[in-house]
Amino acid sequence: MKICRYGPVGHEKPGIIDDNNQLRDLSDVVSDITPETLAVVLAMRGEEAKLASLPVVESKPRFGTPINTVSKFVAIGLNYLDHAKEAELPVPDEPVIFFKAPSSLSGANDDIIVPPHSTKLDWEAELGIVIGHKAKQVSREEALEYVAGYCIVNDVSDRGFQFQSSQWDKAKSCDTFGPIGPYIVTKDEIPDPQSLEIWLEVNGQIRQNSHTSQMIFSVADIVSYVSHYMTLLPGDLIATGTPAGVGLGFKPEPVWLQPGDRILIHIEKLGYQNQRVIAQ
Amino acid sequence: MKICRYGPVGHEKPGIIDDNNQLRDLSDVVSDITPETLAVVLAMRGEEAKLASLPVVESKPRFGTPINTVSKFVAIGLNYLDHAKEAELPVPDEPVIFFKAPSSLSGANDDIIVPPHSTKLDWEAELGIVIGHKAKQVSREEALEYVAGYCIVNDVSDRGFQFQSSQWDKAKSCDTFGPIGPYIVTKDEIPDPQSLEIWLEVNGQIRQNSHTSQMIFSVADIVSYVSHYMTLLPGDLIATGTPAGVGLGFKPEPVWLQPGDRILIHIEKLGYQNQRVIAQ
Repeated sequence: MKICRYGPVGHEKPGIIDDNNQLRDLSDVVSDITPETLAVVLAMRGEEAKLASLPVVESKPRFGTPINTVSKFVAIGLNYLDHAKEAELPVPDEPVIFFKAPSSLSGANDDIIVPPHSTKLDWEAELGIVIGHKAKQVSREEALEYVAGYCIVNDVSDRGFQFQSSQWDKAKSCDTFGPIGPYIVTKDEIPDPQSLEIWLEVNGQIRQNSHTSQMIFSVADIVSYVSHYMTLLPGDLIATGTPAGVGLGFKPEPVWLQPGDRILIHIEKLGYQNQRVIAQ
Repeated sequence: MKICRYGPVGHEKPGIIDDNNQLRDLSDVVSDITPETLAVVLAMRGEEAKLASLPVVESKPRFGTPINTVSKFVAIGLNYLDHAKEAELPVPDEPVIFFKAPSSLSGANDDIIVPPHSTKLDWEAELGIVIGHKAKQVSREEALEYVAGYCIVNDVSDRGFQFQSSQWDKAKSCDTFGPIGPYIVTKDEIPDPQSLEIWLEVNGQIRQNSHTSQMIFSVADIVSYVSHYMTLLPGDLIATGTPAGVGLGFKPEPVWLQPGDRILIHIEKLGYQNQRVIAQ
């Protein structure tokens, strides 16, 4: 099952994409998809008859962020060996945690807006985890029980901002720097989150081409690790790090995104993101 | 006017402390104090008759976090010269932004719980800013117009976690590492946020004793600066950095908090926080 929010910015409706790839409106079940309503939405998985009775949406609407009012947007740095190497940063002994502001979240196909003074805009295709249940100090073995599903994340970054100070959050948190979705794919459809192809193109040229089996710390490792430092709540997002092929890693010179550029991202079973870069 | 949430954990009611220092229940006006209801609560400032008609709360209840479902908890690092020096870190040229998880927030007088493997627990008394209106790329001159009020923040940190990786968020985001309040004091009562005494005691011994005039970047500088990187939303919190006197800075050896320790924090016009450190 795929969970989404569809419609114009600020007026998104809750939706579900069923097994026949049909978008259905969920407004009669919940008013929005939020941390508070996520459990009700997830329970629809077992209610095939109820699902089939939901109104069909015939148009091809915009996808908004698939969940609203997220309380934490956690991200893991340097979680692929080849990316740590291209960034010329040490391979971490344990997951490197930073945060992106929830205000950076945007729909999967929304424009990425270049903020003032940004000159080193970069892309990062990542597997996103959506937490389903409150997780506090959970073991690696039980960690996946707390996951609701997965989605694509583009962890957009400005490398100029990133290396202005020791802390990365500022560079990762500008408005529109967090496209997620188009939808959350519930975990029953992703039996092994470490077996997914992940790739990203800029203007039709392949830039990242990897596989989630290449992650240093697995989804289970990450959920368990983060939950030992802070309680994870329903709807919390975790971006799991990006493979090699970002603009920062280009030789002999880095390559940065420019207004007019097009980004296409795919993760196996999680759909596509398609963004345009525009000046503010 | 002081805005608070009072009552047992998870069952807090909205409240206001009037000019006679009387706690009054605000449940008839709003169901909770959240980013969505903050504007309505702030508008009570001009409604003295309405304020005076609210039910009086005679008991001395616990103070919860004075606002619920905060979307961003921003913090500024190294914003007092003497603290940068004691931490042996460079004095920043511009504000150092990091985040604390909203799940770290707790009431002003709630226990600070030592998380597993924490051995270097430290205190940081800070002036907190509460954003009142959406602020995107606002100038330093107009920045204070976007502020709803101020509160005390204890930016509790584990220095072991902090220096495990380059990123500080993990060390600052454990549950109970963000006592705020006891209340938000609306900005009409704080004409100059750079003229406030700030001090902190551990077990009755003064450890931090400074003044917000000593901040490197002022409240107006910080709100303007952060708003140029990410949109600030109603209810967003910004902790503005701590003065010298944290445990990390002790010579010849740092001093860390232990279960049983008591912390008392005061900022002029913003009340007191009083926490006990306990083992998990």
